[in-house]
Amino acid sequence: MKSRPLILVTNDDGIVAPGIKALIEVARKHGEVVVVAPDQPQSGKGHAITLNNPIRLRQVHLFDGIEAHECSGTPVDCVKLAKNVLYRDREIALCVSGINHGSNASINIIYSGTMSAAMEASLEQVDSIGFSLLDFSFEADFTAAQHFADQIIGEVLAKGLQNCRLLNVNIPRGKKEDIHGVRVCKQAEGVWVEEFKEGIDPRGEKYYWLTGAFVNLDKSDDTDIAWLGKGYVSVVPSGHDLTQYNALEAMDYLNL
Amino acid sequence: MKSRPLILVTNDDGIVAPGIKALIEVARKHGEVVVVAPDQPQSGKGHAITLNNPIRLRQVHLFDGIEAHECSGTPVDCVKLAKNVLYRDREIALCVSGINHGSNASINIIYSGTMSAAMEASLEQVDSIGFSLLDFSFEADFTAAQHFADQIIGEVLAKGLQNCRLLNVNIPRGKKEDIHGVRVCKQAEGVWVEEFKEGIDPRGEKYYWLTGAFVNLDKSDDTDIAWLGKGYVSVVPSGHDLTQYNALEAMDYLNL
Repeated sequence: MKSRPLILVTNDDGIVAPGIKALIEVARKHGEVVVVAPDQPQSGKGHAITLNNPIRLRQVHLFDGIEAHECSGTPVDCVKLAKNVLYRDREIALCVSGINHGSNASINIIYSGTMSAAMEASLEQVDSIGFSLLDFSFEADFTAAQHFADQIIGEVLAKGLQNCRLLNVNIPRGKKEDIHGVRVCKQAEGVWVEEFKEGIDPRGEKYYWLTGAFVNLDKSDDTDIAWLGKGYVSVVPSGHDLTQYNALEAMDYLNL
Repeated sequence: MKSRPLILVTNDDGIVAPGIKALIEVARKHGEVVVVAPDQPQSGKGHAITLNNPIRLRQVHLFDGIEAHECSGTPVDCVKLAKNVLYRDREIALCVSGINHGSNASINIIYSGTMSAAMEASLEQVDSIGFSLLDFSFEADFTAAQHFADQIIGEVLAKGLQNCRLLNVNIPRGKKEDIHGVRVCKQAEGVWVEEFKEGIDPRGEKYYWLTGAFVNLDKSDDTDIAWLGKGYVSVVPSGHDLTQYNALEAMDYLNL
């Protein structure tokens, strides 16, 4: 009998977040699941790694019959430790990250710990998918997200990621019946318009607290934001080459 | 008389790092300089933002005649606060980040706080350049780096970044005379091969400490790694669209 594929599950909301439990339930249908996830919430950590401090790993018994470790580091640290320490002698067939509480569509991929963990796996030559539900609540209903994650993981394990190693999957809020399907599309151009809440702390010192609103700058109809708006799950095949090729020629004046 | 362009200087090594002082000395030749930089080293912070804690800003008097603030947040937080709080009523003509102590060529752009700060400025519609010197030492000689930063900032302010908003500039170690010139090129495909140093702390608990070596996977000769190896300054015009366009068709099977 062929052994079941090894699936690494991680996230950025922390190992006790409901979203990772929902993802583990799906992933275990498709393979042997192992979990390495942060011991505390790590939203907005981007591709941060821990350079100046030691990192801790602790085995935890949170999910029936599943080997799980909590990690004191960032989401990217979790993936590095899984790949290079805990499971260095095994082949990880797929890394799945999430299900994130909140959207990682458009430019959010840059800030997201969930997507950075998935990207790290892809950098280390492991096929990887980040899943996010457009609902920040810890009480969010993951039923529809689980249904689509199940479908997508099954398809990807069967057919492979081809010339890509990373998918950014976002799932609208709502019941399964209200979601019309899945669309492969591009990352929308967008921006966070920031505000900072200013306040005075109990010791009389001024502080700033980040808040803001996402603005979609992209009017084309084949973006993740557009498809999510029409009630579809969006899938953006993603990479890590940031070269802006169409600017190479224009910047010729810097060949000094 | 036309007022001098406003240039925001930031970094990830912290406001007392020699590299930012070197960059300020160059930038002030080209415009009115303001500084917002982290109050402690923030290397490897990627595009992290501070969501769950307040951020502090403190005016500091470190650089003669230059308004400077240290910030308790990440490099990206520094740029957000500069753009949206401190200088929200002024037009920032250019953001320069660095000069980083160590390379940000190839895939390092993803992990780098220096480049993430520069990218954040570009996301907020400010032309931006990250500068890095291939020398980790705090005793590094920035003379050659300053020479090329001066040339590049001058050219960019005069000619604009065209259809691009972000440059990743890396400068070899060595004397100015040993550096052959500047080349606009693409980001090399590379990977960090990680190792973790394992140890036992004074309380008897196991820890892991990240280390590793960069491996260039890219054999083409028009990459940043290739040009740096030949003794040139590399300039990669960079963006933030991670869509892997050549995979859109192959992933068609996920249009479910």
